[in-house]
Amino acid sequence: MSKLASNLQIDSARLWSTIHDTAKFGATPKGGVRRLTLGPEDKLVRDWFRAACEAAGCEVQIDALGNMFALRRGRDMSKPPVGLGSHLDTQPTGGKFDGVLGTLAALEVLRTLNDASIETELPLCVANWTNEEGSRFAPAMMGSAAYVGDFTVEDILSRKDAAGISVAEALDSIGYRGDSAVGTQKFTSFIELHIEQGPILEAESKAIGVVDSGQGVLWYDGKITGFESHAGSTPMQLRRDALATLSEIVLAVERIAIELGPNAVGTVGEAVIAAPSRNVIPGEIAFTIDTRSADAAIMDALDQRIRAAAAEIATRRKVEVALDLLWRKPPTRFDPKLVDAVEIAAKELGYSNRRITSGAGHDACNLNTKMPVAMIFVPCKDGVSHNELEDATQPDCSAGANVLLHTVLALAGVAK
Amino acid sequence: MSKLASNLQIDSARLWSTIHDTAKFGATPKGGVRRLTLGPEDKLVRDWFRAACEAAGCEVQIDALGNMFALRRGRDMSKPPVGLGSHLDTQPTGGKFDGVLGTLAALEVLRTLNDASIETELPLCVANWTNEEGSRFAPAMMGSAAYVGDFTVEDILSRKDAAGISVAEALDSIGYRGDSAVGTQKFTSFIELHIEQGPILEAESKAIGVVDSGQGVLWYDGKITGFESHAGSTPMQLRRDALATLSEIVLAVERIAIELGPNAVGTVGEAVIAAPSRNVIPGEIAFTIDTRSADAAIMDALDQRIRAAAAEIATRRKVEVALDLLWRKPPTRFDPKLVDAVEIAAKELGYSNRRITSGAGHDACNLNTKMPVAMIFVPCKDGVSHNELEDATQPDCSAGANVLLHTVLALAGVAK
Repeated sequence: MSKLASNLQIDSARLWSTIHDTAKFGATPKGGVRRLTLGPEDKLVRDWFRAACEAAGCEVQIDALGNMFALRRGRDMSKPPVGLGSHLDTQPTGGKFDGVLGTLAALEVLRTLNDASIETELPLCVANWTNEEGSRFAPAMMGSAAYVGDFTVEDILSRKDAAGISVAEALDSIGYRGDSAVGTQKFTSFIELHIEQGPILEAESKAIGVVDSGQGVLWYDGKITGFESHAGSTPMQLRRDALATLSEIVLAVERIAIELGPNAVGTVGEAVIAAPSRNVIPGEIAFTIDTRSADAAIMDALDQRIRAAAAEIATRRKVEVALDLLWRKPPTRFDPKLVDAVEIAAKELGYSNRRITSGAGHDACNLNTKMPVAMIFVPCKDGVSHNELEDATQPDCSAGANVLLHTVLALAGVAK
Repeated sequence: MSKLASNLQIDSARLWSTIHDTAKFGATPKGGVRRLTLGPEDKLVRDWFRAACEAAGCEVQIDALGNMFALRRGRDMSKPPVGLGSHLDTQPTGGKFDGVLGTLAALEVLRTLNDASIETELPLCVANWTNEEGSRFAPAMMGSAAYVGDFTVEDILSRKDAAGISVAEALDSIGYRGDSAVGTQKFTSFIELHIEQGPILEAESKAIGVVDSGQGVLWYDGKITGFESHAGSTPMQLRRDALATLSEIVLAVERIAIELGPNAVGTVGEAVIAAPSRNVIPGEIAFTIDTRSADAAIMDALDQRIRAAAAEIATRRKVEVALDLLWRKPPTRFDPKLVDAVEIAAKELGYSNRRITSGAGHDACNLNTKMPVAMIFVPCKDGVSHNELEDATQPDCSAGANVLLHTVLALAGVAK
């Protein structure tokens, strides 16, 4: 690699201002971002992103699920590009960095190469994947999951949000149902930079996490059917209380995850009582369960024990509990050569680093089944994400972007 | 009492057909009744009721809040009448029996006495109280509450419904703002027959509930503030989960009510997660608690133990739990002599019966502060009320009406 290329650094101030400037699309009073996938704020950031990539000399393609691909030509266009990027959608009360850092750092990599007039041997392609968060439409990481064929495009287009709006309708409403077929944009390999969303790097004062694996995920939709009745005139022993039933399930999920830990987590994130009233015993509740482990055997144990607990509680309380497995994502092992490439880049740049498992799911975990993939983590404050308080430092974000830059240069090569 | 009087029975077929004939005023497709207080359907049933009472030889007075009083003269007009009755308004999707049974059974008592040419020593007065349900105007049990002076007439007249129509305007629109001042119609005592609105009588196969008390009520608004974070990457031991906290509170309310039972109930009827998402640990939840007992000491214990449990759970889970007492209604103790009179009537008529506490509020509970009062309950199917599925059997309704007849005869006496 040329001296110029090996000494190259991204523009830290430009990356930092780009992150904060685009946070205006869906900015919340508390300093976070509410940018639900395929909503009006997502359209605004997508329009900005397309223009910025085109200004950086890229050709931008959009596929039938709104996945965005910005191609920077390489010397050898006979090979697929090296992919980099993440997502620009957020949780309902999300932060400025989750997904955004990886997508805007990828753009910063292209801008840096342009400024240095560096042509890569292989082309590069920056991706913005649709609906990584999964908070408006299930499943999460929808765009990358369909890309690798885990779901058909027709299935995904028919998924509806809480308001009954389908993915197809949402795509059309913001003009992001693209022409190119899902899966046609190939990659030689893919690198995703992301905040850790956990407390480990910060606790150990490491600048870079070299991600070698990811947790598997089980998602359930649950429904409890008890019996709605008068809160004053129904004796305790004659009740079939859907909320008391849910309460036992929530605590069972928590207990089971702790017992199978430390390599396991379990969460009930949503629970909605049908026709609630302060003097009516809840008769019906819809809820969700999210449980994860990086160990396939522990995932099986989570599934078995949660189902058994729900069944026992339902029988004892004389209510119906339905648990539907919505999604099962096996644990991820990233490509050893790419993981090494990330580690080498971090070391050559002199950043403190360690190998780490991703607690959260990422588009990179989906892509891993179809191509060599690795991830780069940087610390986030208190390990907090999916929260308006989510935060990361400029030096850490820049370190991650520099590792991304040099990993990509190592994979794509510099044209002689 | 004369042989005739002691053997007297109401006309079961006439009562049953009267209940079903008048259900046409506001009949719903599903077989229920929608007769919101002071609306057009309420006017129709009031007009019918006034005509029926006049046909039974009564003088009908209407007070300034539309409370209707049908007086049947007794031999001794120097004393106030024995009162009986209930209400004819219903919930938006109400049934055929709640309130209706007690009012039409009271009319049936008068008709039965007329057929047998029985004159009572004291006069009798059948009441139809305005807005017992409280679903169009707040508060519930409005007419009887103003009658006993819990609210001023001016205050009640100014209350507005969701459409901005005041009670005064609604009364005038159906011509039921009467001449007599609220509270001028005195009673020696008052007996209200009502469906149980709970499952106890049905579960124990009792025909008659001898109601000796009404539950006091404590209503709380609660708020839990934990910390929202990522469901995948937040280790179990670092969580501050608002839903797991609520779950412990729900089960604590249930456990405390059971431990302080059988004369106690506790319910969490509403619970709303702020910005819920299936892969986010809930950070904030608003909820309500409704807890009741007919024993003031148990109400104090409920309050103390629920607050203590919430505080312990909050401290252990490192979250904030706020509990605000919204409403405290003390328990009702009905008049022991009247309760005995109801029980004696039930026993002499050979009906299976038990003492019971009213879980729901009734006009009789308001009146109890100003005169001797008791209530008679009959079973309703599955304990269901405030629902179009509300149902009761002809034999049970007739049994209740016969107990009402003989309780009233015992209180008013038969003229020699």
